[in-house]
Amino acid sequence: MAVISSEKFCAPPLIPVARPLLPSADALLPYLRRIDQTRIYSNMGPLTRELEERLERHFSVPAGSVATVANATLGLTLTLQALGARPGTLCLMPAWTFAASGHAAVAAGLRPWFLDVDADDWCIKPTSVLAAIRRLGADKVGAIMPVAPFGGRVDTAAWDVFYEQTRLPVVIDAAAAFDSLRPGQVPSVVSLHATKVLGAGEGGFVISRDRQIVIDVQRRSNFGFYGAREAKVLATNAKLSEYASAVGLAALDCWPATRAQWASTASSYRKALAGWPDIAPMPGLNGLVSSTFMVRVAASLGRVGPMAMDLARHGIATRRWWGGGLHEEHAFVEYGRDPLPITTELGRQTIGLPCARDMTRREIATVCAALANVTGLDGPSRRSFASGLDATPYDEPALLALGTV
Amino acid sequence: MAVISSEKFCAPPLIPVARPLLPSADALLPYLRRIDQTRIYSNMGPLTRELEERLERHFSVPAGSVATVANATLGLTLTLQALGARPGTLCLMPAWTFAASGHAAVAAGLRPWFLDVDADDWCIKPTSVLAAIRRLGADKVGAIMPVAPFGGRVDTAAWDVFYEQTRLPVVIDAAAAFDSLRPGQVPSVVSLHATKVLGAGEGGFVISRDRQIVIDVQRRSNFGFYGAREAKVLATNAKLSEYASAVGLAALDCWPATRAQWASTASSYRKALAGWPDIAPMPGLNGLVSSTFMVRVAASLGRVGPMAMDLARHGIATRRWWGGGLHEEHAFVEYGRDPLPITTELGRQTIGLPCARDMTRREIATVCAALANVTGLDGPSRRSFASGLDATPYDEPALLALGTV
Repeated sequence: MAVISSEKFCAPPLIPVARPLLPSADALLPYLRRIDQTRIYSNMGPLTRELEERLERHFSVPAGSVATVANATLGLTLTLQALGARPGTLCLMPAWTFAASGHAAVAAGLRPWFLDVDADDWCIKPTSVLAAIRRLGADKVGAIMPVAPFGGRVDTAAWDVFYEQTRLPVVIDAAAAFDSLRPGQVPSVVSLHATKVLGAGEGGFVISRDRQIVIDVQRRSNFGFYGAREAKVLATNAKLSEYASAVGLAALDCWPATRAQWASTASSYRKALAGWPDIAPMPGLNGLVSSTFMVRVAASLGRVGPMAMDLARHGIATRRWWGGGLHEEHAFVEYGRDPLPITTELGRQTIGLPCARDMTRREIATVCAALANVTGLDGPSRRSFASGLDATPYDEPALLALGTV
Repeated sequence: MAVISSEKFCAPPLIPVARPLLPSADALLPYLRRIDQTRIYSNMGPLTRELEERLERHFSVPAGSVATVANATLGLTLTLQALGARPGTLCLMPAWTFAASGHAAVAAGLRPWFLDVDADDWCIKPTSVLAAIRRLGADKVGAIMPVAPFGGRVDTAAWDVFYEQTRLPVVIDAAAAFDSLRPGQVPSVVSLHATKVLGAGEGGFVISRDRQIVIDVQRRSNFGFYGAREAKVLATNAKLSEYASAVGLAALDCWPATRAQWASTASSYRKALAGWPDIAPMPGLNGLVSSTFMVRVAASLGRVGPMAMDLARHGIATRRWWGGGLHEEHAFVEYGRDPLPITTELGRQTIGLPCARDMTRREIATVCAALANVTGLDGPSRRSFASGLDATPYDEPALLALGTV
């Protein structure tokens, strides 16, 4: 029997924090054959148009409501430009977000201003944003970027009302919100990155019932060309290729099955953690699927930083996806902020557990057992959750096919 | 026999201005199977690394000299940022360029200043740029963006000397220069768009012997992460996916054959046009391949605008790829410029003829016959060029498989 050195065993970790699974080569093949036929490879070709149309049907929005983009970060920047957000002004956004939100605003010439989120759904709300605008001065604020955290739902309707009242540009960073999104007038930007519930490798789309905004984003993603080959406006290249569109279409083909798998992973976790009030799944996700499984750990169990290191020693990779909040990252420390007590708490007490749509229940049991061990919660509660799970076979080869994400 | 209506016959044109041809689905399949195996779909995965390594070998540069990007436009912006080009300063660039050059500079916070090009190679040169800097004031100029036009060669060595002398950020827009590029210290940005000689659908890469710049660009293409998941610098998402890298790798696999086809198209055109001094191929391309075939038409034959319309009536699509110069496009009219007599002349007297790597000689003969007809050059010269070409069969089905580009 071969001796497995500890080095080989520990790196990469036994259970990775994410293990994306996109359509197989075989599933892509019919779309790739169509590319061979058309000899069109980008520039809003037929597969890209079809992907946009299918996304429109998926979200029950009229034709012309979706513009694909090369990725969600670029989509956010182009949408801010399309909305006419004035460079030099503040872009109000939650501190509890991924770096893309901040980068996208800076790239559009705005200065992020970080707001605290609500504890109930980890989002910023129109009422507190209105208060912030009064405090900061209406002339200083150029745009608002609410963020849908980890697949959670942003109340688009409330932001539509906010927009009607204020006429301030609003773009929703709905990067991870493919499943929860309810499109409104206010544009939302969804990511199709490999790590999301529906992935195309790299990619994204802007969706809005305001078709002028969608057209404007599309033009800004293609050098500002409006019909003729003349750059009319501030723009870049953010086109989605036909290849990426092929992946997106193949992913949509099996979305019901994919969604069921994500739901199963979340449900297994919820079942496993049900007896542990001190380790609570992220709020607001009931019935929705996400590609991350975030938990909030009671302060009495300590901070998640040391916990993550303990879990790594058990072969469980976790991630503090948003660290301590975006305001703490070097590229953003110069920007202004409100007091951020809830963000700070979320940074200390929340952590992403391993999450994949093809995780076995045994894997989830392994994660939760390790979690119980490092938090000192093992004992009766550990047994109670383990017995609640089917004893599906331990899928070791799959575990070892570990992608970095 | 079916009657073909003139409408059906004329739109799309009989011979399109470009007809990209990227690797087939079958050629992609081995790479796609590897993606299935690794379950890595982006974020500088193994195929992206392999593409970078193979590009390094192709250009005989040390490891670490190439960073792939989602497209060349983003590559230019990120390189300007990596070079520390100060926002608010001028970015000197030729007016004779594509919109991407100007957009990339504006996205990096700089203001384009348009220079005239030399007639001999349609490029800007260090000597005239130095003169412009003296005129404009050294403190006002933040960066220089020489452009390699239509596959032409930029004298990288001369720009390396310029950089050593001035320490001004220089980035070469080598979007179409995959074949002509000789990488130097000064970074060059090459496009892998479908319309280029080597295509990946959408994509590009930054190449430089200054590996610090390459690393910096790579980080700025991934949210500014430096090892850890913390945004350290101004950045965005400009990552090339594993899918796009697969296309790039498959394209590199057949590069010698692809190159030979491009060379054959150019050689057929040159042969056909050899007897016509009034219609001269773009200078500086001897021995190099390009995905465009630009000709300069003598002023005595009139301007190319009306000529293009006449050619369209003959079923020949052409394109004034860069219109009358970038300074004329709406998004750029506000920016400053030198007098631009040569650019203006190039805008009036140059035009891109249909160009594809699988064009038949018969197609080229058709284009040249139409050109002879609309310029009044038919007669003896027409016969002389037609007889110089092999009578390869007229490939009608291929002609009708017309992609928009």
